[in-house]
Amino acid sequence: MEAKRLILALFLLFLLSKSSAFPSRKSRVHKPCKRLVFYFHDIIYNGKNSKNATAAIVGAPAWGNKTILANQNHFGDLVVFDDPITLDNNLHSAPVGRAQGIYVYDKKEIFTAWLGFSFVFNSTEHKGSINFAGADPLMNKTRDVSVIGGTGDFIMARGIATLMTDAFEGEVYFRLRVDIQLYECW
Amino acid sequence: MEAKRLILALFLLFLLSKSSAFPSRKSRVHKPCKRLVFYFHDIIYNGKNSKNATAAIVGAPAWGNKTILANQNHFGDLVVFDDPITLDNNLHSAPVGRAQGIYVYDKKEIFTAWLGFSFVFNSTEHKGSINFAGADPLMNKTRDVSVIGGTGDFIMARGIATLMTDAFEGEVYFRLRVDIQLYECW
Amino acid sequence: MEAKRLILALFLLFLLSKSSAFPSRKSRVHKPCKRLVFYFHDIIYNGKNSKNATAAIVGAPAWGNKTILANQNHFGDLVVFDDPITLDNNLHSAPVGRAQGIYVYDKKEIFTAWLGFSFVFNSTEHKGSINFAGADPLMNKTRDVSVIGGTGDFIMARGIATLMTDAFEGEVYFRLRVDIQLYECW
Repeated sequence: MEAKRLILALFLLFLLSKSSAFPSRKSRVHKPCKRLVFYFHDIIYNGKNSKNATAAIVGAPAWGNKTILANQNHFGDLVVFDDPITLDNNLHSAPVGRAQGIYVYDKKEIFTAWLGFSFVFNSTEHKGSINFAGADPLMNKTRDVSVIGGTGDFIMARGIATLMTDAFEGEVYFRLRVDIQLYECW
Repeated sequence: MEAKRLILALFLLFLLSKSSAFPSRKSRVHKPCKRLVFYFHDIIYNGKNSKNATAAIVGAPAWGNKTILANQNHFGDLVVFDDPITLDNNLHSAPVGRAQGIYVYDKKEIFTAWLGFSFVFNSTEHKGSINFAGADPLMNKTRDVSVIGGTGDFIMARGIATLMTDAFEGEVYFRLRVDIQLYECW
Repeated sequence: MEAKRLILALFLLFLLSKSSAFPSRKSRVHKPCKRLVFYFHDIIYNGKNSKNATAAIVGAPAWGNKTILANQNHFGDLVVFDDPITLDNNLHSAPVGRAQGIYVYDKKEIFTAWLGFSFVFNSTEHKGSINFAGADPLMNKTRDVSVIGGTGDFIMARGIATLMTDAFEGEVYFRLRVDIQLYECW
């Protein structure tokens, strides 16, 4: 009698283990192991805002220059940035980290970009970095890039980040909302 | 008696589970969970082909410029591209997506490049992106870069992509065949 | 009696399996499946060292140029490199591979960089590549970037690499020690 009950308990445990070890497509897709939302703020150098600028054009096509984003939807402009990360959408909130890396406008017909960058944290809340890469079709309301790795608190992280243009002013300031969904966490 | 049979069944199930959870090196190496072959077409801006060009030099070394690939095997030339992806090797076939990102020639002695780019799909067939990074020793017949992530249909993708130069014309047009082998799929 | 012993054995096996399938945070963090230490050597082109240079400035901000690293902690300078990798800290040791890719100085206030690069091996020891990306806060004694993938011997590799500035001479030569810790190996 006892043996049977033990077997039953064991079997249930076994099933439980199986369901965790082989998650259905659905459950994996819908349950990030970590989710974080941030804003970051990009102020491109335009020849006059050197004190406030957090980004600068460092590569440009033959028809471009380093202080004005180029014709043809900025195709070919390569920008380096060190942008403050905030918890809300206020540029003047205390930064919780820095978004650092490059983006490049990569299409003549519409605004699109390619991004390679990191979120760098060094606070009591988070220490370490999250690394991102991917295409950013700016005209879409939301667009996803890949989380390709992490260090420190985010070591071995993988997942996606959903970008949304939260605001922009002319061609100098823009603010992105980033919804990070990690599907691999340590 | 029944208890023993149950135990045996359970044990077999257990072994089965173990063998799936710890796949042998061999089986993982040899069986991509998804395989896709595409071509993409790169036409570099040379000062005269602005209508057809899909790519432009946006960074160059001190001895280079933005309309002619530099001396010393183009060392230091950084190119931004938005290239059509096709299913066959015909530049004029209907594109199924865009290859977007950067490459940079990175060796003085021979042609080699470093790539960071994405395949962006938005068709009935595929929606989402595949992100790539890696070294491209162009003189080798085939060379592998990493699939470092994906979004949409390709969320959480990992694997490799085997590149092959399928054709080139002078220093303006080249066509790459890309054989994508994903070893992690959702 | 026998049934009970079998059940116990099975249960122990089950626990063992669980502990492997769901490793504690601690054990995974502390045991790389592969560890490799290398040095690489970067000599930036300054207009006079064209024979020895392994790297060149190819993007620069409006206030910079291609032969001198820019003011404001080199913010905006984008460098392409093809650096020899050695097993010890001697620039003149036989190289075992090449470190190829880009870095960009990305902060006005202090030295920091963002890196996208590969280690490319083609020796009896190692064939294939390891791909890296991440932020490099140069002023820290050690800093971690992500291993985002690999090819050949390093196919599907993931992990981190700890960078340390081992030596530098002025603004032309620097040497990095790289301690690669892979947590996913095939």
